[in-house]
Amino acid sequence: MPDRRMVFYVSDGTGITAETIGHSLLTQFNGVEFSTRRIAFVDSHERVDQVIAEIKAAGERTGKRPIVVNTIVEPVLNARLFECGALMLDVFEPFIQPLEQELGVKRSHRIGHAHGLVDPVAYERRISATNYALSHDDGIDLDYHEADVILVGVSRSGKTPTCLYLALHYGVKAANYPLTPEDLERRELPVRLRPYRSKLFGLTISPERLRQIRTERRPNSRYADLETCRAEVAAAEAILRHEGIPTLSTTHSSIEEIAGKVLERLGLERVMF
Amino acid sequence: MPDRRMVFYVSDGTGITAETIGHSLLTQFNGVEFSTRRIAFVDSHERVDQVIAEIKAAGERTGKRPIVVNTIVEPVLNARLFECGALMLDVFEPFIQPLEQELGVKRSHRIGHAHGLVDPVAYERRISATNYALSHDDGIDLDYHEADVILVGVSRSGKTPTCLYLALHYGVKAANYPLTPEDLERRELPVRLRPYRSKLFGLTISPERLRQIRTERRPNSRYADLETCRAEVAAAEAILRHEGIPTLSTTHSSIEEIAGKVLERLGLERVMF
Repeated sequence: MPDRRMVFYVSDGTGITAETIGHSLLTQFNGVEFSTRRIAFVDSHERVDQVIAEIKAAGERTGKRPIVVNTIVEPVLNARLFECGALMLDVFEPFIQPLEQELGVKRSHRIGHAHGLVDPVAYERRISATNYALSHDDGIDLDYHEADVILVGVSRSGKTPTCLYLALHYGVKAANYPLTPEDLERRELPVRLRPYRSKLFGLTISPERLRQIRTERRPNSRYADLETCRAEVAAAEAILRHEGIPTLSTTHSSIEEIAGKVLERLGLERVMF
Repeated sequence: MPDRRMVFYVSDGTGITAETIGHSLLTQFNGVEFSTRRIAFVDSHERVDQVIAEIKAAGERTGKRPIVVNTIVEPVLNARLFECGALMLDVFEPFIQPLEQELGVKRSHRIGHAHGLVDPVAYERRISATNYALSHDDGIDLDYHEADVILVGVSRSGKTPTCLYLALHYGVKAANYPLTPEDLERRELPVRLRPYRSKLFGLTISPERLRQIRTERRPNSRYADLETCRAEVAAAEAILRHEGIPTLSTTHSSIEEIAGKVLERLGLERVMF
């Protein structure tokens, strides 16, 4: 793809902020094809030299001026990056001056603080939530006293990745319980979940999408059969609806979006790490 | 904390972009105490009304003008948010016009695309990498043929959360192998890891920090004892050094930073999902 527009996310830290805002900006331009590259930890003159050379070379190779999303905090290195001749989107620049004026404080230029600052309390919360998600995944441990939320749904409806995301990013203790064929046959909420009703959140999914996901796991199995998927989803939705459990379809949602909606619906006020 | 400056991350999508850039900006202002709140899925006039009322109330309660980091894409709702009277940091605004000019294309105003777009191939890659991390965690499954990377280190050096982060965010298949007291006594790379030398990446940690983390798990145990931590870390570092395995200290690093450095060092060129 030699004629795609090259976009570089350049940072003196992890590059997560540059990539996040860059990705958000690019998705607003339909029909333009981009090729992206994250260059992290650009924290010395040598590294800036390399990056400038790489960006210039990309411009020559593609015949299109590259775009740089720049979150370098160190002012000298930040300024030097402009030598590369790309369209430079300097992410923090427009916001620093209004913030300085509002707060009456000058910014400090410490590098890579956003995702590199280790707060031992926050770290412990993330790790302990991650361990919780691992030990309460897929109905392994059914003691949900400590859970902030319990995701309920059929197998492969998106419960495990959502739990891990909630743990890693928000320090939320998220368990998940898979509705088994036996649970679904009984057409009622499993007895062991009843004491935790207020923590339950349902995930559902279209039978077609479920079939697609299950086929990746076990091709040509009864488990992945469209009829099985239809019957399981219908039974699960009936239980969730009857019990009035807040439920979200994961069919067209990313993990980030599902996690965001779970927090929102349950009123779990958490700051992202 | 009634006198902290309130910061609102307001979005018509998940709010992840607003929170990410907002957090990066705030960490550049040392000594100012902030209280942050993410308000996601603000996609109707009713929601905007609620949010404006909440921001105004926060300003009155704290006696300090709130700060809003605004990533609402829909132009009418975005403009309405300015009625709240806060310092408004409109995240996309400074970058859209230069991009439109460079690309010769007008932006579209589709909402919540950045983290809400479901690409089934990308989803499958994230999920299958997550399953891989779960089944190859902590030496459970020792067949590393499919691994992109294998993290090696003593127990509680940060391997599991890093593997899960790499899987969820980058679709990287990351396994982890804990160096057991037996491995450490032998003072050499475990035989089963040798065929995969090029995929190995070491995580180390200061004995003091390790003691702190292990104490959270098993207080007053031999496992958490400072002498045990010292001996294990020294032996692990000796093996990693002797074998020339790239190694990173996790003592002062966040999960994001460790993951970023692993990708960087192994030349795993991956785009964040």
